Amino acid sequence: MPNKEDILTEWFARQSQAPKSRFPIGIGDDMAQVRLGGDESVLITTDMLLDGTHFDLSTATMERVGIKAMNCSLSDCAAMATIPVCAVVAVALPKGFGSAKLKRLHKGLVKAGRKFDCPLIGGDITAWTDKSSRFAVNVTMLSRPAPGIEPVRRNGAKVGDLICVTGTLGGSLRRKHLSFTPRVHEALTIATAAKIHAMMDITDGLSTDLNRMCKQSDVGAVLDARWIPLSSDAKRTAHPLASALHDGEDFELLFALHSRDFSRIRDLPGIRISCVGIFTEGKYLNIRGIDGRIRRLKPGGYDHL
Amino acid sequence: MPNKEDILTEWFARQSQAPKSRFPIGIGDDMAQVRLGGDESVLITTDMLLDGTHFDLSTATMERVGIKAMNCSLSDCAAMATIPVCAVVAVALPKGFGSAKLKRLHKGLVKAGRKFDCPLIGGDITAWTDKSSRFAVNVTMLSRPAPGIEPVRRNGAKVGDLICVTGTLGGSLRRKHLSFTPRVHEALTIATAAKIHAMMDITDGLSTDLNRMCKQSDVGAVLDARWIPLSSDAKRTAHPLASALHDGEDFELLFALHSRDFSRIRDLPGIRISCVGIFTEGKYLNIRGIDGRIRRLKPGGYDHL
Repeated sequence: MPNKEDILTEWFARQSQAPKSRFPIGIGDDMAQVRLGGDESVLITTDMLLDGTHFDLSTATMERVGIKAMNCSLSDCAAMATIPVCAVVAVALPKGFGSAKLKRLHKGLVKAGRKFDCPLIGGDITAWTDKSSRFAVNVTMLSRPAPGIEPVRRNGAKVGDLICVTGTLGGSLRRKHLSFTPRVHEALTIATAAKIHAMMDITDGLSTDLNRMCKQSDVGAVLDARWIPLSSDAKRTAHPLASALHDGEDFELLFALHSRDFSRIRDLPGIRISCVGIFTEGKYLNIRGIDGRIRRLKPGGYDHL
Repeated sequence: MPNKEDILTEWFARQSQAPKSRFPIGIGDDMAQVRLGGDESVLITTDMLLDGTHFDLSTATMERVGIKAMNCSLSDCAAMATIPVCAVVAVALPKGFGSAKLKRLHKGLVKAGRKFDCPLIGGDITAWTDKSSRFAVNVTMLSRPAPGIEPVRRNGAKVGDLICVTGTLGGSLRRKHLSFTPRVHEALTIATAAKIHAMMDITDGLSTDLNRMCKQSDVGAVLDARWIPLSSDAKRTAHPLASALHDGEDFELLFALHSRDFSRIRDLPGIRISCVGIFTEGKYLNIRGIDGRIRRLKPGGYDHL
């Protein structure tokens, strides 16, 4: 089944009238890029997080929600191998929400931002007038290109490139989705060590996000089931491999690079990197199973719509 | 009664750890300013608009909502006398919302942006999982300083300055709040013609927003009831003056300038400007009534919380 969100995103991208000279990267990547005067440019990402969809206020603390909201945007900065600059936040409050909870949210936002020198510089507070609408928080973040590193897009994977991921995958909903580390430093280290052809963060599951990278790069892919790094939480599920392939919110990096460059990044200190497959001709995802047989892999990740 | 939103905003501003050297304007103004390399800087504003609070989807079209969402942010650009650059949009969709409505929203957003050369360059689509949460749209906009004009803040009004407004005030909820013209061109024209000490857009009612400007500038104010420009919709209400003083969503400019400069802006072609009072010593708002008597004026505008 086609991903509804992707169909809409592609439609919006086709409608775009933003001139490429001023906006080199637009709809469909992890961040959009805005060229300013001189050589300066800034990147921007906006993310809406909803109670019941991205977190559950009946179990998660407001501080934790603030941390997650900020970290999701920081992960977008990482996905482009850019340096976070600052964030603005808007909230929609249920009736009678109270300022104490908002201050705890603020604490989480600031704490997460501070780790990456990314202060909160503005915001907007609004409240629902009906009785049943739930809490929403929207973070918009700016980043800037690292010196000498062009922002890494999703559309540059080439046939023969290796498919790589950081960390381990799957089972994020058990714990990690509220407490992950955005891979900002890892992305900059990797992009400094080797030429990265394409990169994104894994938010909706490896299969869905790899499919996006393939479509945008006009290539296919073969994953190898034996190489996919399973998280300890994925291993506790009934289907660890399916969990690693399809669960959302890993917030790890997925990237493409030439096979000869793998040695440059394989042993970077403190960064776990796995080669999980190879980009191919064609337009389909395939996976080599534990049994060695190659099968078609349908993207099975999270569809927001 | 103190404005809860203001109390919270002041609290957030006090917590801010954003260094002034990189972020000259932070929480509490219409936009925050981010200094980049060289002389470049960019300003940012984020606004959450909610069904039931800022519009009513049972009567407003999605296109109209898109126009309003974009125009609210454009009005923030105007409030600082800056030039809009681009916008990103995030939406929270009720269950079963459908893509056709989203495309109509998009049409409105793009249409409003196009008038000010401000394209939509990115976004995020999310959906509620519960049955009752309503539609929300968040617009984040970037702007840049106009050549030779520093972004105009709220905190520069001086004792003796004139209090000026564009257009007419009051009764916006009848029609104008969905169809106003953001005063982007007017703001730039005014700030080019004369030195503007402080400026903001009137979103929560003249009395409330003037009170904010006074507090931030550490001055008081006396309005003159006879000088306040009543909109035709305000005139149709039972209390036209109260409507002009306290109704929200005028989206006109409120600004302060030296009295000797008023002649520079009074007759700018196509821009209606009214002097509605004077900034004074002290910290209170007063109003000279139709009867000539001066009374204390309590801010009576819209409080979001």
